[in-house]
Amino acid sequence: MTAERVTGVYAGIDVGGTKTMFCVTRGSGELLLMERRSTAAHEAPASFVAWLFGELAQLLAGIELEVSQLAGIGIGFPGVIGDAEGCLTQAPALPWPAEDIRPLIRRYYAGRIYLDNDVNLALLGECWKGAAQGKEHVLMITVGTGIGGAMLLNGRLYKGADFAAGEAGYMIVDAGQDRHRLLASGADFGPLEAVASGSGITALARAWFAEADPLARTSSRILELAGGSCAEIDARHVLQAAAEGDAAALSIMDQPLEHLAAAVASAAVLLNPQLVVLGGGVAASGDYYMKEIRERAGKYLPFPVNIEPARLGNAAGAAGAAAAAAAILW
Amino acid sequence: MTAERVTGVYAGIDVGGTKTMFCVTRGSGELLLMERRSTAAHEAPASFVAWLFGELAQLLAGIELEVSQLAGIGIGFPGVIGDAEGCLTQAPALPWPAEDIRPLIRRYYAGRIYLDNDVNLALLGECWKGAAQGKEHVLMITVGTGIGGAMLLNGRLYKGADFAAGEAGYMIVDAGQDRHRLLASGADFGPLEAVASGSGITALARAWFAEADPLARTSSRILELAGGSCAEIDARHVLQAAAEGDAAALSIMDQPLEHLAAAVASAAVLLNPQLVVLGGGVAASGDYYMKEIRERAGKYLPFPVNIEPARLGNAAGAAGAAAAAAAILW
Repeated sequence: MTAERVTGVYAGIDVGGTKTMFCVTRGSGELLLMERRSTAAHEAPASFVAWLFGELAQLLAGIELEVSQLAGIGIGFPGVIGDAEGCLTQAPALPWPAEDIRPLIRRYYAGRIYLDNDVNLALLGECWKGAAQGKEHVLMITVGTGIGGAMLLNGRLYKGADFAAGEAGYMIVDAGQDRHRLLASGADFGPLEAVASGSGITALARAWFAEADPLARTSSRILELAGGSCAEIDARHVLQAAAEGDAAALSIMDQPLEHLAAAVASAAVLLNPQLVVLGGGVAASGDYYMKEIRERAGKYLPFPVNIEPARLGNAAGAAGAAAAAAAILW
Repeated sequence: MTAERVTGVYAGIDVGGTKTMFCVTRGSGELLLMERRSTAAHEAPASFVAWLFGELAQLLAGIELEVSQLAGIGIGFPGVIGDAEGCLTQAPALPWPAEDIRPLIRRYYAGRIYLDNDVNLALLGECWKGAAQGKEHVLMITVGTGIGGAMLLNGRLYKGADFAAGEAGYMIVDAGQDRHRLLASGADFGPLEAVASGSGITALARAWFAEADPLARTSSRILELAGGSCAEIDARHVLQAAAEGDAAALSIMDQPLEHLAAAVASAAVLLNPQLVVLGGGVAASGDYYMKEIRERAGKYLPFPVNIEPARLGNAAGAAGAAAAAAAILW
């Protein structure tokens, strides 16, 4: 922590494929603004950065500030990007040509810039204001549409040799079947992701309904929650029905829960963290999910491990980006 | 690296349940001595430390040095121990009452002491003089009687919140069966260890022979290598027979290889290391083992990962202990 840096006002921006979150905060921690915007589609980084700074300027105007007054800006992207090299790669949601984004940002802002992967920044957000405050060794696994991960080790983000650390969706917890899962997805999805992510749960539920006998199908609470249409079923319906005790939902959730719990345990024995934070929409679905993961992971673990849900929801990434820009944590 | 520290002579000691390796080196890297002794049995740390310094003094006398002339001593133990707290725990090979070892060492030596887990020090040894020279991000997995692990992240050992990081033997790669494996062992062995370690391979081979039909049994090269006695079969015979193409050995090795490869892949996607070093007797058994692990891990990995055998064999721990004492690497 640098005393000079934490004074002043910082912006944190979490860029997603469909939504972008803007956060403006004082270095002291006082939140000035947290606003979400639909991400405008752009074919290349230049026009995207122009849009981003247009939105930021407009939001800042509402609190009587200008971009040039910011002491730092942190930006998170859903892909691989490093503070030392500004090319976004492995970002299916933003399929841009490879180009260093930093010179583009320099057209609009001359101060400190911090670029990072969105899950890394969500973890920093949780460390700053959320579930992981005061911790030095934290593993975060996000279970949403996909599965991602990030690590704070010895009080700092650990990014690996090529900024690719934390790819928890590719962990192997079912060696007998995971190779087939990888081949089936053309390696676009990790084998853990294929089973335990929101998309994985949705796919398992649809497969279950395609094969279930008519009575089981029509009596399931899942179908009711999906408005009676099998094609509308998604992971949220399965999670809610399972929490209510629906037999079909409990059966569908068995494998996603067991695989995610095994991955949490496997990563925890390797890293010996003080805390595992579970983020993302699936993990945020409620007590049922967290209780199951804790119980199932506990049965694999040779020592107790704290497993907590993320607290900042979809504001974590933008908050963490601002904290990183302020060098409060990174 | 501290320039003052790397001058002078350092000792590194790798304490094992049956053998203890002593290394004496100049800070410049010049090796003065590497000697192995049978570990004398002791019921408590005090008499063990007395024995250890007796042996060390004797070895140093042979090169006309005294303990007091050493600029630092590093000592590795097969269990959990930290440089900041000198109590050895989780060390089944040295079942001593809990006691801080540092004051005991102070009776014999007043200079710099560095205590650590033996696998951490083996990794430092490989970083200093072996397979991982010049690397900043290295995962080491040792596959011997048991399975252990250690990590160098951002150029430093990563030890976790409670000095327990790297427990690769407890990784879960077969969620459907691993819980049963844990229950069967009373959690004394990790589920990966139960299948993929030397002990695991020995157990699988003995189970195979107990069930095989007489013709398959007597025609197997494994039995020949074991001198014709099923009770004498161990992992070395299975590995050698598999390398020679023996059908029974290839079949017995399938699961240990697949599980270890899955664990390597799983850890590598999480940590994104530059290199995975495989140490221990099983990994040192030869080209057959390394080739199989590389091929099988490659099929799980979304990006290429370098997998290399350790180079220093059973001298790695003592070399790493000396390097750590010299603060060349840690």
